[in-house]
Amino acid sequence: MPAPAPAPVCIIGASGSLGFGLALRLGRAGVPIAIGSRSAERASETVERARTAVPDGSFAGYDNAEAVARAETVILSVPFRNQSEMLTNLKGALRDGQLLIDASVPLAAAHSGKATRMLGVWQGSAAQQAREMAPDGVRVVSALHTVSAASLSDLDHALAEDVLVCGDSRADKREAAALIERIAGLRCVDCGRLEMARITESLTALLIAVNSRYKVHAGIRLTGLPEELWE
Amino acid sequence: MPAPAPAPVCIIGASGSLGFGLALRLGRAGVPIAIGSRSAERASETVERARTAVPDGSFAGYDNAEAVARAETVILSVPFRNQSEMLTNLKGALRDGQLLIDASVPLAAAHSGKATRMLGVWQGSAAQQAREMAPDGVRVVSALHTVSAASLSDLDHALAEDVLVCGDSRADKREAAALIERIAGLRCVDCGRLEMARITESLTALLIAVNSRYKVHAGIRLTGLPEELWE
Repeated sequence: MPAPAPAPVCIIGASGSLGFGLALRLGRAGVPIAIGSRSAERASETVERARTAVPDGSFAGYDNAEAVARAETVILSVPFRNQSEMLTNLKGALRDGQLLIDASVPLAAAHSGKATRMLGVWQGSAAQQAREMAPDGVRVVSALHTVSAASLSDLDHALAEDVLVCGDSRADKREAAALIERIAGLRCVDCGRLEMARITESLTALLIAVNSRYKVHAGIRLTGLPEELWE
Repeated sequence: MPAPAPAPVCIIGASGSLGFGLALRLGRAGVPIAIGSRSAERASETVERARTAVPDGSFAGYDNAEAVARAETVILSVPFRNQSEMLTNLKGALRDGQLLIDASVPLAAAHSGKATRMLGVWQGSAAQQAREMAPDGVRVVSALHTVSAASLSDLDHALAEDVLVCGDSRADKREAAALIERIAGLRCVDCGRLEMARITESLTALLIAVNSRYKVHAGIRLTGLPEELWE
């Protein structure tokens, strides 16, 4: 019997560079992608772009609430200045049992500051803000802050780096990791509880500083880890 | 003509695990090490331990002020709860032009909190506190937060990881990197201005969480960087 088709994944913010790169890579890995946007028209444009890059991928466009309704897993990949408003708008769409993978980063750039500096978020991190704002029963995991959007979107680029995953439930992190590791070259590492997102989110700022210095798209790899990270 | 012998390096906190590991590795690389301690007797004990591990290394023990006086480069590797007092005590010993490599990490463990959590430091980071407290003319660079003390001290362990270096002067960072890269298997990466130590210091807490999860001594490697990082 063929393996069952993967469940569809909703990407909120897929017209942005990180979200689009994730859509391409997951789509190429055979995951059906529900692309959410503020308008169904904008979503359709992004779907067209994705189909051009990955002709055999399954991409469909909807307004955000509809896209959320069509998936069990939601990747939230919007600029931090939109994260809170987006979660408010999605309160009626997100539902019990869904997995929400938050990739938001509170860069100071959100409020015209430097991209190498972080904002202080009262809850501690963007991920903790997401957990506070998402309806009860939505399972929040934090991930995907250190993978370069440019590297993801360049499908000829061979990825070979880690994704740092934080969350309060080991099972939820494992589920997020299994999805993310469908992308060839990405290895997920359990970095502890959701509060550790304060640190993993800040790595975006650090990598922006490194990228600026060396004119590269750097990523992160942890050394000294065992072979099997999600037994 | 033989290459000139490297200048001596002072390690404050060499009886601690990170400082001791650095003393062993730098000593094995041919760098003369001035080991500072609160008492010359305690320094002598550490020197004996170092000589046992690295018989052909050059180690000498002094009280902290004397050790600082005998070196152009000072590595500050003390628990964060002692960093401020130590810098106060060394105000008369540190001198214009010295390079101070601060490896302090403001873990919440400094005040009986968790080692996976950070303290808020008013200046932004331990390194920025060091810069504020060190006499004018002392050149402060931040580094060495992600290299496992256990891995350093185990001389049979082949290191293969990065050291993230922050500082406001490219020349000072290059000088620190040239010293640190005498340790085989360590590659230094310029991570921007000293304020970025807020992030690099917090990686100690992240790695402690990862180490706890996987029972390892993890390190960090950045991906996608060019061959030459300090031209």
